[in-house]
Amino acid sequence: MRVIGIDPGLTRCGVGIVDARVGRATMVAVGVIRTSASDPTPNRLVSIESALLEWLEEYRPEAMAIERVFAQHNLHSVMDTMQTAGVASLVGARAGLDVAYHTPSEVKAAVTGSGAADKAQLTNMVTRILKLAQPPKPADAADALAIAITHAWRGPRTNRYAAAVAAAKGKR
Amino acid sequence: MRVIGIDPGLTRCGVGIVDARVGRATMVAVGVIRTSASDPTPNRLVSIESALLEWLEEYRPEAMAIERVFAQHNLHSVMDTMQTAGVASLVGARAGLDVAYHTPSEVKAAVTGSGAADKAQLTNMVTRILKLAQPPKPADAADALAIAITHAWRGPRTNRYAAAVAAAKGKR
Repeated sequence: MRVIGIDPGLTRCGVGIVDARVGRATMVAVGVIRTSASDPTPNRLVSIESALLEWLEEYRPEAMAIERVFAQHNLHSVMDTMQTAGVASLVGARAGLDVAYHTPSEVKAAVTGSGAADKAQLTNMVTRILKLAQPPKPADAADALAIAITHAWRGPRTNRYAAAVAAAKGKR
Repeated sequence: MRVIGIDPGLTRCGVGIVDARVGRATMVAVGVIRTSASDPTPNRLVSIESALLEWLEEYRPEAMAIERVFAQHNLHSVMDTMQTAGVASLVGARAGLDVAYHTPSEVKAAVTGSGAADKAQLTNMVTRILKLAQPPKPADAADALAIAITHAWRGPRTNRYAAAVAAAKGKR
């Protein structure tokens, strides 16, 4: 299962693509879509749409996983981040991908085993899971890879629990 | 100047189109784009994009004005509303429209003269400004018309203050 993970952001939108199967994942690509803070938001959303379309065209993922954003502070940037998530979601659904959202704590739990893991622990586990020689770069794109891994491992097709249950049934 | 006003919402997205010039505005169209709460969010965003494209195709506005959303509560629905705003913004910018955001208090101030006006006062003023026989229907689409009026009257081309200054200069 090939998944594109999205860590939404208007200035820096992390994108990570992984191929995953039961308990395993390999990195296909990772990067950041950047737009200039001096451009108007609507134009930046158009740039992000274009860039995401190129990612889909090049890597042909089957599913898209987007980090769910929480509005803990009434910040101007929260609307920008959520608008970016909306554009990503639109692009994915329009292309026929299965699009899902995962919360930061779901991602931490899936990747590190603890929903309270810090950023360094998450990056460390992503590096180990993907068997990378060094942490993924750019650093904040590690989150996008973590989201993609989460989706692949939580999904019905590669769910480790479901696989274990199926394997156990097969042995009876 | 023809403006499409958007009151973003995933379940009900208000749309109102006005033709406006200095101190005047007439209603061109008003409505609500609805999507089903039983459908996944990404699919609903695709439906909203399609519907907005039809509105643009039919009415050919020059500008789009979107209500700026504030995250006062950490509600699940805030992300849905902001994602919808992102899709509207994307559709407008991609079509070459001038896209802007206005806060609820800017809209109230522009339309009623008071940033603290309530919903009934806003609807009443929209009805009077547009010289409608009765309040616009559906009721919550009145907000979309108010946003469109705000944009037209605040914009450089139809700004009442700028027009007054220009007229005063012409008289010298």
